[in-house]
Amino acid sequence: MSVTDELLANAERYAADFDKGHLPLPPARHVAVLACMDARLNVYGLLGLTEGDAHVIRNAGGVVTADERRSLAISQRLLGTREIILIHHTGCGMLTFTDDAFKTAIADETGLKPDWAAEAFTDLDEDVRQSIARIQADPFIPVKDSVRGFVYEVETGRLREVKA
Amino acid sequence: MSVTDELLANAERYAADFDKGHLPLPPARHVAVLACMDARLNVYGLLGLTEGDAHVIRNAGGVVTADERRSLAISQRLLGTREIILIHHTGCGMLTFTDDAFKTAIADETGLKPDWAAEAFTDLDEDVRQSIARIQADPFIPVKDSVRGFVYEVETGRLREVKA
Repeated sequence: MSVTDELLANAERYAADFDKGHLPLPPARHVAVLACMDARLNVYGLLGLTEGDAHVIRNAGGVVTADERRSLAISQRLLGTREIILIHHTGCGMLTFTDDAFKTAIADETGLKPDWAAEAFTDLDEDVRQSIARIQADPFIPVKDSVRGFVYEVETGRLREVKA
Repeated sequence: MSVTDELLANAERYAADFDKGHLPLPPARHVAVLACMDARLNVYGLLGLTEGDAHVIRNAGGVVTADERRSLAISQRLLGTREIILIHHTGCGMLTFTDDAFKTAIADETGLKPDWAAEAFTDLDEDVRQSIARIQADPFIPVKDSVRGFVYEVETGRLREVKA
């Protein structure tokens, strides 16, 4: 039995208890969260979210690339979110390699060099500030009054704000 | 008080009860989930995940663009995941507009046309298959034995597999 099959069995239990069939499409709390994909970062649990509350966007690092700007533009323009919360975290895998080494290793193995930036970083707080700056510089995300960035501490469970 | 401040108060409660400070970086279940950012889609709740189990990647639509291929390459190559679960859902915002109309509206307002595809789609199952095909075609994601796609039904809480 694959892990996917085990998780599908969990999904059947979720459906059996389901009572949230009439939630509206726009997020009730008008907030979009952009966080790292890290397995230890439970966005719903950490922020006390429940079904219907918030858009949750996630990727390796919680960084801001074109696809996150696309998602945030759709989130605000079509679905009415007004606040953005960015979450990086301690112990992130993105702190453990460099773009050059990672892409060279892939090129050595596959014969092709990735045509994307891996977005590795060396300083957590600085990368949170970089992510905020990329959002502030984007011409297609209309609402930027509340774009705040945080570091989640995987050791303590605490969320620490990164000041500009 | 902003919504962000209210969610930060929730985060303090999460930290107060926190007892998961020593989880390893690689996901315990060796799985990466790629899902839509939709507020009604509670990935942890649906799949019965807990802290440390799985990478969770999310964006508008749950589509596969360069940034998701980047995240999946990092997930598999550096952090050992072996299975991929894709989740779209009924009632998706991506079914409610077209790329052309959305980008023209933005250009009319800002004077700039977005340099990204909005990735709107008209057929849920077909877009799940498209997402699987984009992963299968990617030269940098090494493990493709278990790439399965699903539609989550926001009306019923059920997860339905999309067959090739």
